[in-house]
Amino acid sequence: MAYDFQISRSLIYVGLAKEEYRPKLMDWLYRHHIPDSMSNFGPYCTKYAFYQSYPTPPTGEKFGARAMQLTEHYWLVNEHMPEMKNRSMSEFMPMDVLRWQGCLPDIDMGEQKFESGDAGRTAGGNVDCPPFIFAFVPLNWEDDFKGAGRTVEDGPNYRWQFLLQYPEGVSKEEGEKWFYEEWVPYFENCPYVNRFVSSRVSANYGAPSAQFDRCAEMWFAGEEEWKKAVDRAAKKIRKPEWAESDEFPYLRPQFNIASIFTGDMATMDAYSQYHGYITMR
Amino acid sequence: MAYDFQISRSLIYVGLAKEEYRPKLMDWLYRHHIPDSMSNFGPYCTKYAFYQSYPTPPTGEKFGARAMQLTEHYWLVNEHMPEMKNRSMSEFMPMDVLRWQGCLPDIDMGEQKFESGDAGRTAGGNVDCPPFIFAFVPLNWEDDFKGAGRTVEDGPNYRWQFLLQYPEGVSKEEGEKWFYEEWVPYFENCPYVNRFVSSRVSANYGAPSAQFDRCAEMWFAGEEEWKKAVDRAAKKIRKPEWAESDEFPYLRPQFNIASIFTGDMATMDAYSQYHGYITMR
Amino acid sequence: MAYDFQISRSLIYVGLAKEEYRPKLMDWLYRHHIPDSMSNFGPYCTKYAFYQSYPTPPTGEKFGARAMQLTEHYWLVNEHMPEMKNRSMSEFMPMDVLRWQGCLPDIDMGEQKFESGDAGRTAGGNVDCPPFIFAFVPLNWEDDFKGAGRTVEDGPNYRWQFLLQYPEGVSKEEGEKWFYEEWVPYFENCPYVNRFVSSRVSANYGAPSAQFDRCAEMWFAGEEEWKKAVDRAAKKIRKPEWAESDEFPYLRPQFNIASIFTGDMATMDAYSQYHGYITMR
Amino acid sequence: MAYDFQISRSLIYVGLAKEEYRPKLMDWLYRHHIPDSMSNFGPYCTKYAFYQSYPTPPTGEKFGARAMQLTEHYWLVNEHMPEMKNRSMSEFMPMDVLRWQGCLPDIDMGEQKFESGDAGRTAGGNVDCPPFIFAFVPLNWEDDFKGAGRTVEDGPNYRWQFLLQYPEGVSKEEGEKWFYEEWVPYFENCPYVNRFVSSRVSANYGAPSAQFDRCAEMWFAGEEEWKKAVDRAAKKIRKPEWAESDEFPYLRPQFNIASIFTGDMATMDAYSQYHGYITMR
Amino acid sequence: MAYDFQISRSLIYVGLAKEEYRPKLMDWLYRHHIPDSMSNFGPYCTKYAFYQSYPTPPTGEKFGARAMQLTEHYWLVNEHMPEMKNRSMSEFMPMDVLRWQGCLPDIDMGEQKFESGDAGRTAGGNVDCPPFIFAFVPLNWEDDFKGAGRTVEDGPNYRWQFLLQYPEGVSKEEGEKWFYEEWVPYFENCPYVNRFVSSRVSANYGAPSAQFDRCAEMWFAGEEEWKKAVDRAAKKIRKPEWAESDEFPYLRPQFNIASIFTGDMATMDAYSQYHGYITMR
Amino acid sequence: MAYDFQISRSLIYVGLAKEEYRPKLMDWLYRHHIPDSMSNFGPYCTKYAFYQSYPTPPTGEKFGARAMQLTEHYWLVNEHMPEMKNRSMSEFMPMDVLRWQGCLPDIDMGEQKFESGDAGRTAGGNVDCPPFIFAFVPLNWEDDFKGAGRTVEDGPNYRWQFLLQYPEGVSKEEGEKWFYEEWVPYFENCPYVNRFVSSRVSANYGAPSAQFDRCAEMWFAGEEEWKKAVDRAAKKIRKPEWAESDEFPYLRPQFNIASIFTGDMATMDAYSQYHGYITMR
Repeated sequence: MAYDFQISRSLIYVGLAKEEYRPKLMDWLYRHHIPDSMSNFGPYCTKYAFYQSYPTPPTGEKFGARAMQLTEHYWLVNEHMPEMKNRSMSEFMPMDVLRWQGCLPDIDMGEQKFESGDAGRTAGGNVDCPPFIFAFVPLNWEDDFKGAGRTVEDGPNYRWQFLLQYPEGVSKEEGEKWFYEEWVPYFENCPYVNRFVSSRVSANYGAPSAQFDRCAEMWFAGEEEWKKAVDRAAKKIRKPEWAESDEFPYLRPQFNIASIFTGDMATMDAYSQYHGYITMR
Repeated sequence: MAYDFQISRSLIYVGLAKEEYRPKLMDWLYRHHIPDSMSNFGPYCTKYAFYQSYPTPPTGEKFGARAMQLTEHYWLVNEHMPEMKNRSMSEFMPMDVLRWQGCLPDIDMGEQKFESGDAGRTAGGNVDCPPFIFAFVPLNWEDDFKGAGRTVEDGPNYRWQFLLQYPEGVSKEEGEKWFYEEWVPYFENCPYVNRFVSSRVSANYGAPSAQFDRCAEMWFAGEEEWKKAVDRAAKKIRKPEWAESDEFPYLRPQFNIASIFTGDMATMDAYSQYHGYITMR
Repeated sequence: MAYDFQISRSLIYVGLAKEEYRPKLMDWLYRHHIPDSMSNFGPYCTKYAFYQSYPTPPTGEKFGARAMQLTEHYWLVNEHMPEMKNRSMSEFMPMDVLRWQGCLPDIDMGEQKFESGDAGRTAGGNVDCPPFIFAFVPLNWEDDFKGAGRTVEDGPNYRWQFLLQYPEGVSKEEGEKWFYEEWVPYFENCPYVNRFVSSRVSANYGAPSAQFDRCAEMWFAGEEEWKKAVDRAAKKIRKPEWAESDEFPYLRPQFNIASIFTGDMATMDAYSQYHGYITMR
Repeated sequence: MAYDFQISRSLIYVGLAKEEYRPKLMDWLYRHHIPDSMSNFGPYCTKYAFYQSYPTPPTGEKFGARAMQLTEHYWLVNEHMPEMKNRSMSEFMPMDVLRWQGCLPDIDMGEQKFESGDAGRTAGGNVDCPPFIFAFVPLNWEDDFKGAGRTVEDGPNYRWQFLLQYPEGVSKEEGEKWFYEEWVPYFENCPYVNRFVSSRVSANYGAPSAQFDRCAEMWFAGEEEWKKAVDRAAKKIRKPEWAESDEFPYLRPQFNIASIFTGDMATMDAYSQYHGYITMR
Repeated sequence: MAYDFQISRSLIYVGLAKEEYRPKLMDWLYRHHIPDSMSNFGPYCTKYAFYQSYPTPPTGEKFGARAMQLTEHYWLVNEHMPEMKNRSMSEFMPMDVLRWQGCLPDIDMGEQKFESGDAGRTAGGNVDCPPFIFAFVPLNWEDDFKGAGRTVEDGPNYRWQFLLQYPEGVSKEEGEKWFYEEWVPYFENCPYVNRFVSSRVSANYGAPSAQFDRCAEMWFAGEEEWKKAVDRAAKKIRKPEWAESDEFPYLRPQFNIASIFTGDMATMDAYSQYHGYITMR
Repeated sequence: MAYDFQISRSLIYVGLAKEEYRPKLMDWLYRHHIPDSMSNFGPYCTKYAFYQSYPTPPTGEKFGARAMQLTEHYWLVNEHMPEMKNRSMSEFMPMDVLRWQGCLPDIDMGEQKFESGDAGRTAGGNVDCPPFIFAFVPLNWEDDFKGAGRTVEDGPNYRWQFLLQYPEGVSKEEGEKWFYEEWVPYFENCPYVNRFVSSRVSANYGAPSAQFDRCAEMWFAGEEEWKKAVDRAAKKIRKPEWAESDEFPYLRPQFNIASIFTGDMATMDAYSQYHGYITMR
């Protein structure tokens, strides 16, 4: 057989073009997409969870906050390899689904739908529309900067997870140097940060323009602590020569930095909580 | 035995004093309260569901929007009768839980906790702090004003559910007259309203000041349609002599009108989705 | 509150106009109807199970065999009383659903749908189309004629459950007399029958013409034993004066006798096995 | 319909004749009896839980400790009324099951089985064999003597639940007087007792000789605290004139006092944890 | 460790010697075999689903229709390797189970049982009795001939899945040539076919005579469309020189062609729907 | 990616310092540890089961009986490799947890907790305190000495599983020779033994002193048969020169031989039975 054991974790940052579309996107996600997905990847996916976004905190837009949810999978194989191309049953994916997320222009798509889920996930992400983000990271965090040993008994967490894509023309080394020399020491020492971990992104399967380099996660007591931490960071973290903006984090929101603000809990742990219409693959 | 068959539905409108407390309140609700509750009322409750609030729409504050969630139960007996007073195991309810919801002043309560869940639910609701709301309604809506026959295939819904308490000194008849003569015809005919139902409240078990009279629910395509509908209502619905405010809905938000904005779906249907640490009662 | 405790069991005998419609009816039943139903009656229904029909045995048509399934509910209240008329969300019920079951003429209904589930269930059942059957019986069988004490360890069962409606013009007393004096002694003594129980029907909520009087159930080792038992019955059971047919069982199939042939097992015990898209009522 | 709403709680104290029989009794309970039971009472039972017995503490035999488990049900109707007598499918109950529990003499019963579950539950309980105990109590405890407000956060509990049957010839009033005047004040004031509740037994459906009068439950930190509490009780609680033994608790173990020692947790909460072979009733 | 990651999908086509045996086979499959199987392969199987066969369509016998069900597994390892030979607990497999499926002569086997599940699965399949079929295929289909992109919203499907074993003496190349040159173009262009996919069989673990070469699946609106498609195929598809029959499909039914006719849905998705008596392996 | 496919089975033998601690250890295991564990290893563990210990049989102490439970996992990867070191959320593990199990001295640890679960599991096991045992074995048993083919229908089993660590200074070859030449022939031929299987331990991740060499399992009808078998073994099995004790099994209990006495059933099969507070890793 042709399959390598490629156990991995993937992160989809789901945005929302405007609040008007929340009911529509929720209906599609829960009524159509969860059973479609589980029918399809059930045999080789080991976790499929949704973490609803908390309301975007003040200035969260500068960090590319995505307002809908984090969708997280753990995989046993890489389903993007050629051997797994043919899907017996495809996911139902109207073009509007990408539009509601802000990845396509806000024009009614009528009855049009993508020929496959992958076609939808790699569409969009052009000059004005934020790209669909689908980033793969190792099972466990590569860097554990702060707060190892924290348990659920130590209190609930306001989690800020974000992805960085160093701008075009900036070498990965240069980008990483900036992250390690500026971000890491500042946030490690920041009293508002209870936990800080990070990994390199190993693969991106979203829009072609979404080639993220690094993922990091920090935990705070609440959004006020997060605000204090990033406000102070704006004064402490050096603006790189290749900055895309004058303000911290100096990166183009939604395109070069994207963020999820959420809590500890999986608001939908699909394998244990959702058992609807499961088809043969 | 002393138990009457009193099948009924109850609605708890859970607020949030500020976003800072969302992680704390979520942790308490999901990690402590769900298993505590199911351990306790499992044998006589038939549905226990959470519907997360959508972000409060513009001007939603005037309608007493509660930002956390709607908690819905269906009961077989009235657990507030004297025969059911003694609880083998009590719910873990720190006073902070009421503070995070805005029902008690925003002062750290330390380790203090209520002696029982009911003690917590009937605390607060004084002059400045919105009351804890726990309203009982019939299983099915008494009035079906518009949109009967709507199914999930007719599209997702932006649901506005609200409770009205006619102000002190206003007779229930007078309040109801205003609702039936002003609200009903306007919203029945409003093109943005897809569904409109209502019932009288049959009992209130929250804070003593929370004695709501009526519950209603309207469905819209999204928050924009809701906004248009209430903006227009402000021009069409007569301000009563006993108005508590000059602006529609003319009632004191959080105290005399309270609202939940949510979607169709139970974000947590606890009996089918949550099976944790269940104790003997 | 207005609700009486009316714990009861109901039986729906689901037919199939022709095999061509099995995929369509199955899709509607499992993908649309189960979640619609559970969303609606979840709080007052305690069991919701499907028992797939076994292939109709030879001559089963004379007994009004229904080829799709038995749908069984247990209820805590009578949801047909006026207080429960208003449904927040209706069941999605295209007219084709009744046509696929054979209750409406076999003419494509296009996009037409019933305004409510109850409207669909009481449609049809005219001169040529078999009626929709929705019969209520007591929790436990009233008469236990044979085989009390049988357990699952005594072997699997081929279950024949059937409903009798004594023909128009025949008094219930006369019909019952025939059942007790002819059917009961014959089948009690029939060596192929391992179990035989029966009850009066207490209410019918299907098509107006479906006013069944009695329900009975017999268990056999397999369809061959059933065939031998009914073949012999044809010689032993007296044809009543009011017979609608010259052959045993002397009743008009689908209209005055209807049958389900099935096994012991619930092929879908929905509350324990299906948790899909659950809405607020 | 004939059914009264009789919501109630029942307690079965399952003993074990000797350790040799534990694998056999466990196999029967979990492999045969849980699915049999759920198939049968699923529609009118709302909780079905097992609490495994902790190892019997020193001197626990004097209190009639039952070594297997507490089986707890919550019911909506009284299934012992005549209308519910006929069971479509019976429980598989070999006579050995009662023997393994110690309710019948320890003689191999071969293939013999009871004709019904109720026949088994009312068998035995003669001069030497402890009776099968099946006692009904109100949903909530009638008396709350000590420790109201205790939550799971206050620490795990060693639970001692026991049933008292005042000896033949002793009036219920006399027995109750002794309980209220001797047991209650002593254990209320005992520093080892964290919680103390009690109710009268409302009905007994086990062996005819098992007509228990009262149920009580006390919680301790562990078995050592229990031991200290009962050792001291032996010196403080007055021996009644009608004592059956010279030692505290002065009652015939297994017959006039029976005890379960267990923890907080339902080791099997069958409705949420066990979904096997479910039959039609 | 010795285990290779061999993620794969397997297909068991379960037949039924005659309808008389359906209750017996169902009882064994659901009451005995599901818990036995899950206890055994739970740690290395990721999907275990049953798809009940639809009634065999007219002329379906010529295609080797199997009347009971398709049993589908997805595996992480190859449990037929020597390292996995020793089973702590074996599957309960009476010889009758193979007889009821038609794989052994129809003679009562009494109490005889196979020493292991594998012994049963490789028994039979002699001159007259159809072989037990247990074929392995890749996770996704190798060839996607028609209908890619079809979703559940495009309508329910009547699924025809079949296995081909080119007759003895015919080289695999020759057989495949016939399939690709005759079957593929005809069915690709057939208007009744909505979907058509296929893969080579990678391994066979059923009866020694069941060495299938190819698996294919086609979807139709219903059995009538299937019938039209195969009737027309009989005129269009060339009979090979090595035909085993004069009629299309020119192969010996049950031995060289076997078919399952079923719907989209898993009628039992065991990991999410069945949790009974699980033992230690 | 760095992960090898290392599917394996692990065994944790959980002891209990004294009965007093059972409620505390149970509370920690079920209320804290199960959700912590599933949150952490959910994506790469395929079975997580508890088997409660049966009461220790007479002389069971000489065999190092552990009184709490067997905890069994099946893994897809080796989570002890460096790439999996960083845990987003740690397990809540107070030092008392090890003390209650007897692995640390019986001194109140107050609020102290381990910095990680692994730190706890490798603590203790010094001169006087039995070590924490965490042994890895192949998926299936390497040696099948007796009773192959036994099924659940052959009767319930009293299972004795034990681990052997040949004493310091004894070569593995020498130890194994003794096991194969003395234990194997005796127990193979012992009439009380219904099943006997064994494997080498492939890795140990518990306390450094717990380096077990071999695991074996035997099944009996009950504890009386076990007792007879080991009593007779004491006369038949040769005492090795390097014996640590004069009595069979000649090994230091808890350190060089440890045993679990349990039944067939998983008393908690966590993935199918427990779905509580699941966090993001």
